[in-house]
Amino acid sequence: MLKSLPIGVFDSGLGGLTVAREIMRNLPMEKIVYFGDTARVPYGSKSGQTIKRYSRQIVRFLKTQEIKAIVVACNTATALAMDEIREEAGGLPVIGVVEPGARAACEASKSGRIGVIATRATIGSHVYSEAIQGIRSDASVIGKACPLLVPLVEEGWIHDKITDEILLRYLDELLEHDIDALILGCTHYPLLRSEIRRLIGDGIRLVNPAYETASELKRLLKEQGLDNDKLRDAGEPYPYRFYVSDEAERFAGFANSVLPVDVKNARIVPIEEF
Amino acid sequence: MLKSLPIGVFDSGLGGLTVAREIMRNLPMEKIVYFGDTARVPYGSKSGQTIKRYSRQIVRFLKTQEIKAIVVACNTATALAMDEIREEAGGLPVIGVVEPGARAACEASKSGRIGVIATRATIGSHVYSEAIQGIRSDASVIGKACPLLVPLVEEGWIHDKITDEILLRYLDELLEHDIDALILGCTHYPLLRSEIRRLIGDGIRLVNPAYETASELKRLLKEQGLDNDKLRDAGEPYPYRFYVSDEAERFAGFANSVLPVDVKNARIVPIEEF
Repeated sequence: MLKSLPIGVFDSGLGGLTVAREIMRNLPMEKIVYFGDTARVPYGSKSGQTIKRYSRQIVRFLKTQEIKAIVVACNTATALAMDEIREEAGGLPVIGVVEPGARAACEASKSGRIGVIATRATIGSHVYSEAIQGIRSDASVIGKACPLLVPLVEEGWIHDKITDEILLRYLDELLEHDIDALILGCTHYPLLRSEIRRLIGDGIRLVNPAYETASELKRLLKEQGLDNDKLRDAGEPYPYRFYVSDEAERFAGFANSVLPVDVKNARIVPIEEF
Repeated sequence: MLKSLPIGVFDSGLGGLTVAREIMRNLPMEKIVYFGDTARVPYGSKSGQTIKRYSRQIVRFLKTQEIKAIVVACNTATALAMDEIREEAGGLPVIGVVEPGARAACEASKSGRIGVIATRATIGSHVYSEAIQGIRSDASVIGKACPLLVPLVEEGWIHDKITDEILLRYLDELLEHDIDALILGCTHYPLLRSEIRRLIGDGIRLVNPAYETASELKRLLKEQGLDNDKLRDAGEPYPYRFYVSDEAERFAGFANSVLPVDVKNARIVPIEEF
């Protein structure tokens, strides 16, 4: 039955697990098939053309997995390849992380001065500015590409003086513009949330699109009658499946540090063939 | 005529330009076809299996370009895919960056305590230790993976307090082992050469495999009668061709900051199809 099918979630690599985490918390009845493109990560420094091609391949793979909806848990892919993803997805509902994040930021901001930190590709696409100004034409959006944050998180230097310094350098420019809301526009950044909070103080609302995306997914599944309302039996198989294009073991290790569940293994998919 | 054919040089992205630069300086009569895999960069955090597959595709592409030899200007590919590269190359001479770097380090070191900084994949492969101990069995090799250095160079933070701090953290461990030679085992690292020199002082010899590889190439071409001895005529076309798998413009910009010649353009190759 359609309702009991899993949700396909994909990202350029590990970061999208922060979105999967929010879906697991907020929609505990739903099954997930996750794909992380660890052989070609990162997307954030690459061109739109390449990101579109990679995203199409991933959607084609996910469609072999009998899913009921797709969550694009990658800001860069959402920013640059949403049309192509919808086209490949056929009739399947597709949610990206940008719209829910933009909407939440518009609600969170009083002054309308909203900051966005993200990858070079996402900032270059101006997708957050456009989405925000579509909702709130008085808003001014200040974007800042932060290419070092993903490698810092992947190096594990999270509670670290050096990371604080790098964050401060990136954030200084935004703080000068007197923003009152800041979008964490890359799925790795929520892992730096408490450091960012400490550095910018309590006056600025932090918006985590991962959280907002899970809420939006919940709403959409309900609206379309696709939400799973049947409790799992004790004997049913593990509801989360993980696929990657490379380094399955490293992925499982990282996933276990991010997710509230145990990731037993991840399987490798030859994604170029899709 | 065979002697006048170009040399194929490849890397996971931009870093191999430091090798191309040494070839241009040391072998000014030689033509070069460079390929940088900018759509899938970096290799240093990926698995051997993936690096082998990508390297094979690149060699198949280079062979369509009528070349006389191949230089693997990527430490990670040299460390993990040399057998596959030689197999794909058929009879063409192939030089990697590891052997020349290891040989120079053995000559540079008095104590036999040699440090290597490189990507996670290169360090994990132990290829430098093996090469060094094959030449000098009394040597002890201390490796350190430095995954943040490539993103720092690509962010342009070269003369920067933060980069100094990160370098010091990575190098501290090596300095404790009282090394007297240090191999810059990733092609981006020569761009941090003067910072590293300043931080570690004059007592440690820095080994740049890019430089050693160009010397080795010169020797090999001469030995096999493949060295180009015909001066170019004024009317001859530009001797350097650049290909990438993505972001041709960004590549050309970076290339112009590294190379002693003008890079007019770089062309995109659909490398997955090879």
